[in-house]
Amino acid sequence: MSGSGAASVAVGAAPAGTTPVGRLLGAIADVGRAPSGGYERFAWTAHDLSLREWFVAEAAARGLSVVTDRAGNQWAWWGDPDADGPGVVTGSHLDSVPGGGAFDGPLGVASAFAALDALRAAGVRPERPLGIVNFSDEEGARFGLACLGSRAVTGTVGADRLLALRDGAGDSLADVLARVGRGISTGSTSDGAGGVRLEHYGRDPEALARVGVFVELHVEQGRYLADLPSDEAAPVAVGAAIWPHGRWRVDLVGEANHAGTTPLAHRHDPMLDLAQLITDVRAAAEHAGALATLAKVQVEPNGVNAIPSRVRAWIDARAETEAAVRAVIGDSSSVGVDAGTGSVGRPGLRSTSSGLPGGGGGLGRWGAVEESWTPATVFDPALAARLADIVGRPGSDLPAPVIGTGAGHDAGIFTAAGVPTAMLFVRNPTGISHSPAELAEEADCDAGVRALTAVLADLLTGGEGR
Amino acid sequence: MSGSGAASVAVGAAPAGTTPVGRLLGAIADVGRAPSGGYERFAWTAHDLSLREWFVAEAAARGLSVVTDRAGNQWAWWGDPDADGPGVVTGSHLDSVPGGGAFDGPLGVASAFAALDALRAAGVRPERPLGIVNFSDEEGARFGLACLGSRAVTGTVGADRLLALRDGAGDSLADVLARVGRGISTGSTSDGAGGVRLEHYGRDPEALARVGVFVELHVEQGRYLADLPSDEAAPVAVGAAIWPHGRWRVDLVGEANHAGTTPLAHRHDPMLDLAQLITDVRAAAEHAGALATLAKVQVEPNGVNAIPSRVRAWIDARAETEAAVRAVIGDSSSVGVDAGTGSVGRPGLRSTSSGLPGGGGGLGRWGAVEESWTPATVFDPALAARLADIVGRPGSDLPAPVIGTGAGHDAGIFTAAGVPTAMLFVRNPTGISHSPAELAEEADCDAGVRALTAVLADLLTGGEGR
Repeated sequence: MSGSGAASVAVGAAPAGTTPVGRLLGAIADVGRAPSGGYERFAWTAHDLSLREWFVAEAAARGLSVVTDRAGNQWAWWGDPDADGPGVVTGSHLDSVPGGGAFDGPLGVASAFAALDALRAAGVRPERPLGIVNFSDEEGARFGLACLGSRAVTGTVGADRLLALRDGAGDSLADVLARVGRGISTGSTSDGAGGVRLEHYGRDPEALARVGVFVELHVEQGRYLADLPSDEAAPVAVGAAIWPHGRWRVDLVGEANHAGTTPLAHRHDPMLDLAQLITDVRAAAEHAGALATLAKVQVEPNGVNAIPSRVRAWIDARAETEAAVRAVIGDSSSVGVDAGTGSVGRPGLRSTSSGLPGGGGGLGRWGAVEESWTPATVFDPALAARLADIVGRPGSDLPAPVIGTGAGHDAGIFTAAGVPTAMLFVRNPTGISHSPAELAEEADCDAGVRALTAVLADLLTGGEGR
Repeated sequence: MSGSGAASVAVGAAPAGTTPVGRLLGAIADVGRAPSGGYERFAWTAHDLSLREWFVAEAAARGLSVVTDRAGNQWAWWGDPDADGPGVVTGSHLDSVPGGGAFDGPLGVASAFAALDALRAAGVRPERPLGIVNFSDEEGARFGLACLGSRAVTGTVGADRLLALRDGAGDSLADVLARVGRGISTGSTSDGAGGVRLEHYGRDPEALARVGVFVELHVEQGRYLADLPSDEAAPVAVGAAIWPHGRWRVDLVGEANHAGTTPLAHRHDPMLDLAQLITDVRAAAEHAGALATLAKVQVEPNGVNAIPSRVRAWIDARAETEAAVRAVIGDSSSVGVDAGTGSVGRPGLRSTSSGLPGGGGGLGRWGAVEESWTPATVFDPALAARLADIVGRPGSDLPAPVIGTGAGHDAGIFTAAGVPTAMLFVRNPTGISHSPAELAEEADCDAGVRALTAVLADLLTGGEGR
């Protein structure tokens, strides 16, 4: 079960395809791959539609029935969840961040198909249906909201708000779905090719009712497993929790003018504010023991010789505790100023004019507007402990490691919606994700499939009620 | 001749159209105007082609013959410059920066037509031909090189380099001209609708030989005239010089990774370098008494939760002297370090690893790469003095003010190419340009036309050889 001795896969490459999961990933390795080696698989683009067709074809090759829910997520079923459900569901997503890697998302979907094959080959007779899911737009790369498909199907965010989200080209999700949505597909079976009806878009209680338990396998986005000492080595970990995290937007307004004729003293240049904001974000994160990142910027008009009229910047902030995130973004109660104002849509996370400049007081003075917020997710502890025992470690009686993560996942949305949920993480030797350098050795991917197979076998044949 | 007492035009609006030049500008006021009020008139787009058709129509209505040169610049001739030339040329450009104003460029072209009408109405009998020019892509908004059309026709930059320039969509100038170039139009007469033949693109000695002297009228890009005391008030100034100026690019390279899982200490985040660079640019400009601006940024991949792999930034720097610009960008000779290396295409302006961080030593350590450079332009001093006398000031015996500017113009390119050149500037009450707030009162525009008419009358009927 150990990955040691396995050939490393070249950075940026999908697995070579010497194992079933490697061959599944290899089949889609060229879809949406930019010349840089990174993937550009954004929701509802031609690349995404191609991946959705691959999902349907893999399901059909295994005799599974495919249902597309009201939010555009794809579900492939072995057995009938409406008659014999709720079922055990596994899977992940097929979309990517800009310049993303080959594993974040697709590894979970490919492992699901590979595990189903292994269950059948082993003669496992499920006592409940098994579902494989491909969630839409998990990365939020197109419309700016992560886990869009799982938030939609669970009703965590309302359909009206989601359909009004706009992509970088100015198209709303409604516009996009009107173009690519095809046929009626919220019923029992469907062509699975991405059909979504605008008038039915959103929360889908029938689809949710089919899910008894959800297990998501994912490449680790860090070096916890890679850095374990050899006597504790493990290719697979079980998820304990997802940190609370959110996204905020800051608008820096200036005055457009000619860069060649406007004296420095007469300028209102928002780029100078951006420099201070970038510095403040890092200082606030360090002070709070959190992660905070300013990685997306829009400059208007973005001309070499035009002092900008506006710079818009986005901040991603996460930490092990909500209090630490609050300390970064700037909560009035934590700095003792202006306690009566400044809430922007979520009690407790305030974000206007209350912080102190340049670090310790957070970013309150910048007037950040909350665009999304996901509370801490704690996966079912009893289930996690049981899966850790089932997965184990190679050459050891130890259970698999149980670890937290700062990355959001659809599994977190499902946990919040009341579905018993677990995650498995596969070792990543670079620790890097959201980049072409994201990596999992093929032997570790295969170990992940074996772990997932064991977990599914237990859940499909074990006691009722989980 | 004074603009005092005239009704102000609303910010962002073209003139109301109570004068000939106001009516000319009013006819194109809606072309390429964004909902924000700013103009988006980029070279060879549908908006630009529409403005080129307007130019041809205005020329045709006056019985002028239109020639499009090998670089795509349009010339409308009263008289035959090949038989009776070289001629007196006036005009400017019709393209805009992103979110630009109504006057920068179009005021010079509209004033040219209005002045020609005034010359004819006054019965002036020219002793040489009069040309009106519309230069292509003066702002450089599409392909990143300002004064593209005048650099091309004069051969200041070679055709191969120009045709290989790419716009934001990845199209080269060659691609674009292949799509929109129409017919054969480098000959004597043409349809004037923008036809350019790729195989003949570039320097055009015949077109240049027709220009005996060039006068460009332009809205002032600053408040020199607006801030004059009332006893020295003047709606129009004469140009003395254009500051030396250039554009540089800095590539800040990092390591892409997940914003939610990568510890702060493990990051290589180029956005932090951008913050320092923005700060350094301002400090270096202040220290050198120059103008320097970081107004254009490209972030890869520009995702909220993806630490950037690269941030690219552009710097615009200008000053009254080349030494001051050199002090900003970082010249090894000025800081006494690394004198043997670092030249990036232009002797004397070095830009690698030689400066000191954070101000006094310029930006040398940032490895800025020069993308364009325009030396100081000093307009013909005798010609400027003569025009200042002709233009004068209302209610005064004083000559018109003679002023320098930090903004580049096609007139500067023509001066460098050896053509006797002059500029007239029309008062701008906001001092703002490259913005919807750019402004000239209609009475001042009309005063500009009268000044231009007087200057042209002198040049068309005066002594030979100028």
